[in-house]
Amino acid sequence: MPELPSDPINSLIKELSSLPGIGPKSAQRITYYLLRTNETQVTALADALITLKKKTKLCRICCNVSENDICSICSNPNRNPTLVLIVEQPQDIVAIEHTGAYHGRYHVLHGSISPTEGVGENDLRIQELLARLQDGAVKEVVIGTNPTREGETTALYLKKLISPLGIKVTRLARGLPFGSELEYADDTTISNAFEGRQDF
Amino acid sequence: MPELPSDPINSLIKELSSLPGIGPKSAQRITYYLLRTNETQVTALADALITLKKKTKLCRICCNVSENDICSICSNPNRNPTLVLIVEQPQDIVAIEHTGAYHGRYHVLHGSISPTEGVGENDLRIQELLARLQDGAVKEVVIGTNPTREGETTALYLKKLISPLGIKVTRLARGLPFGSELEYADDTTISNAFEGRQDF
Repeated sequence: MPELPSDPINSLIKELSSLPGIGPKSAQRITYYLLRTNETQVTALADALITLKKKTKLCRICCNVSENDICSICSNPNRNPTLVLIVEQPQDIVAIEHTGAYHGRYHVLHGSISPTEGVGENDLRIQELLARLQDGAVKEVVIGTNPTREGETTALYLKKLISPLGIKVTRLARGLPFGSELEYADDTTISNAFEGRQDF
Repeated sequence: MPELPSDPINSLIKELSSLPGIGPKSAQRITYYLLRTNETQVTALADALITLKKKTKLCRICCNVSENDICSICSNPNRNPTLVLIVEQPQDIVAIEHTGAYHGRYHVLHGSISPTEGVGENDLRIQELLARLQDGAVKEVVIGTNPTREGETTALYLKKLISPLGIKVTRLARGLPFGSELEYADDTTISNAFEGRQDF
């Protein structure tokens, strides 16, 4: 019978294979790379993993991932407190902050309504959103859910909840992405671009 | 100034990005996946990393990665002790064992001679190889270094060292890979296949 690699190797390959975007071959490659590398790097990686879970929580206001009870954006006096952009995931904030174009605050839903995946409105951070909208400080809510079926469903649901509170509800524009060619754009993108045409 | 993700997130993204085949985007994706997942999975991964370094060593005979002083192949009485296949890396053994076609033993060099990368013959496990060839028990050495410039250089160097010991030296056949088409094979592969043509 052929010999299999030893248990410590197999265990790590198995754990790495369970991560998104890492197949068995990549997991094996990483494992043998780590076998060759010095112990400091491996320990640093293990520590970073443990720290990630131990030192992060959700901001009590916006539900973004944070080291403190209130995240650095919610506690920043230079961020406009009357404007809240609702996103599905914490990493959406990373993308938006990267542009440097937004100076308001956020709210992270941690998902979108998806009946096929069994995610309902109660699985999202919507109660926390409604709670922070009660005191009238927020004047405009921008819905930044993904332009997918689930994102659209969630957007419509939120609009129905927030509009009655007398808060302006907008959403990120749908249209042609920068650098794209009309010739290759899909029907929905073109329809959205036409319906949302802007003064020029 | 745009806000950056918190330190525990950035640390893990940085550590993951340093692994082979994982770019910054994949590292970010994995990190946010781990933020959502339960702590057990993250702890299991961290433990597997630590265990990998703590519980593995190199087999005293063949230099393969092993949990014990002598690996399971070298200590297996059913493996032919007169035949030694020399490979560059431990993962080459995984590939060969997977075929189930080889029943001899191995020797792992942990690299190949590469002047451009500053790897010389003294950086490889060649002393350990010569030591185990002294007692005359090994009758044939099969060189299984990669069919690359570095692998070929290493193979020639080993042949010069081992032949004087009166041990038969062979190497894995070079030729057309299974499932390939002659039309698309490169010149060196075709030349090798012709020079090494076999009786049929």
